[in-house]
Amino acid sequence: MKILFAGAGALGSRFAYMLHKNGEDVTLIDTWKDHVEKIKSEGLKVIIDGEDLGNVNIPIFYPEELTGQYDVVFVATKSMQLRPMLETLKPFLKETTKVICILNGLGHVDTLKEYINPENILIGVTVWTSGLGGPGILKAVGTGKTEIKQVSEEDVTTTKEIVERFNTAGLNLIYSDNVYQSIWHKAGLNCVLNTYCTIIDCNIGQYGSYSGNAELTSSLLDELVAVGKAEGVDVKKEVITKNIENCFDPKTAGLHYPSLYQDIKNGRLTEVDYLNGAVARLGKKHGINTPVCELITHLIHAKEEINGNK
Amino acid sequence: MKILFAGAGALGSRFAYMLHKNGEDVTLIDTWKDHVEKIKSEGLKVIIDGEDLGNVNIPIFYPEELTGQYDVVFVATKSMQLRPMLETLKPFLKETTKVICILNGLGHVDTLKEYINPENILIGVTVWTSGLGGPGILKAVGTGKTEIKQVSEEDVTTTKEIVERFNTAGLNLIYSDNVYQSIWHKAGLNCVLNTYCTIIDCNIGQYGSYSGNAELTSSLLDELVAVGKAEGVDVKKEVITKNIENCFDPKTAGLHYPSLYQDIKNGRLTEVDYLNGAVARLGKKHGINTPVCELITHLIHAKEEINGNK
Repeated sequence: MKILFAGAGALGSRFAYMLHKNGEDVTLIDTWKDHVEKIKSEGLKVIIDGEDLGNVNIPIFYPEELTGQYDVVFVATKSMQLRPMLETLKPFLKETTKVICILNGLGHVDTLKEYINPENILIGVTVWTSGLGGPGILKAVGTGKTEIKQVSEEDVTTTKEIVERFNTAGLNLIYSDNVYQSIWHKAGLNCVLNTYCTIIDCNIGQYGSYSGNAELTSSLLDELVAVGKAEGVDVKKEVITKNIENCFDPKTAGLHYPSLYQDIKNGRLTEVDYLNGAVARLGKKHGINTPVCELITHLIHAKEEINGNK
Repeated sequence: MKILFAGAGALGSRFAYMLHKNGEDVTLIDTWKDHVEKIKSEGLKVIIDGEDLGNVNIPIFYPEELTGQYDVVFVATKSMQLRPMLETLKPFLKETTKVICILNGLGHVDTLKEYINPENILIGVTVWTSGLGGPGILKAVGTGKTEIKQVSEEDVTTTKEIVERFNTAGLNLIYSDNVYQSIWHKAGLNCVLNTYCTIIDCNIGQYGSYSGNAELTSSLLDELVAVGKAEGVDVKKEVITKNIENCFDPKTAGLHYPSLYQDIKNGRLTEVDYLNGAVARLGKKHGINTPVCELITHLIHAKEEINGNK
């Protein structure tokens, strides 16, 4: 089973490393020159839970160097790179290639469907975290789990095999009928914490310390829940709210600045169009007003544009 | 005609100086120690349009030192100090004392009415600007005009006399029936530029450079216009929009960071409760949804609270 990781960032390289270590046929592609060159020349340096596990030789290519075809493609790009990556991948997909997408945010299934048969789309959501310690260095802690579901489920034989191989490699992959709910629940948390922390300019604990945080959270989640339900997903406001509140403690994520905050500060474009922007877009489709999500999306785009982020 | 300036800040001291220079009986009160002591010992140093006009001896007191009663009180505090200042002023008001209020923002007439007969309230709006060059130093440029209206107009004799005296002193005071509209138009501009520049972290020209600025402006003004009309004021969205766009040019206000932005950066509380917060409050009274103004008010309060502004 040839597995291609389309994106060798923090999460992609962690999953790839664990599968590779377990004997799977894994290939990486990425466009970040320093990262690709480092892994090509020295292998991927792996540090997990503070332990240096040495350098591991996993084949890595620039997309334009890629050859062959793959049985499984694991998409591990940023949300906004999903579409261009799918364009790039076209020649390397077979009729039967399964594409796994556990990207954060909403709306990815619609994009995937433009390129891939729903039988071959495995949509999911993960609570694994990971990081890079510079080019060529995977630096991660802890463990996680990933929920996954085949978008159209006529024949799930191959998918079940993938689930088994990932689990044998320790990746804790669960085939679940609640994937859409989990995706919306995770997106709900990110819609709130990522954007509000960025706009207020604070970490998650400080957001939780604001006396009006419950109202800010609530007005946004009301929109997200209404749009999710219109999309046929049983989104539970109280679950998301609880998940958010659990992040306030400095012992959990309270001292953390969300990824979108870091994107803004580091001059990068953000994933807001796949969070609050997606809620606003889907809201329009269903005739549901989403003034809070619309305003937040604008404010983040204004920051990107005025800062010259790219 | 004894005139008391309740607040000797930038605008109060400019108006007081011009009246004093023209022979009016002017008294200042203020609570900022360095400022009061400097004026007490050396007089108010006046620099207008770059020209040093010397030091002028205008009587200045701390509120607790004040004696006597006044014919006219000109309120020149920050919006949030209006109520405590009116409490302080009680002993110094006669049955007939006219109180002039040209503070920025919305909702001041309601506060004034709790303390003062509507016959004695002169509500207004100014386009004069002013500044301080440190304690005891008035540093201003340009000229302006002020519109004013007596809230209840059974007898406007004294008010007309005040208008004449202010005009003789060069203050360009106009008695106008369009005061409420002008107040809402100015507030509309401030609701947009003050808060969006603060949240996006940009100057006025940069706000204008954001490709989505028209939508940001429009969604906020739709709420403000609806609430203003419910209050009986003919608020014109196209006028406010035009006024805002006129500020984008670096030759006008494009390079300027609005006062609310500076308040946040300098650790002070803001006037947001008298801008977007007032629109939201009045909206509730009339059953009009104001999600944009509510959200913005929260975001500014979150910044104040988390930064420890006071």
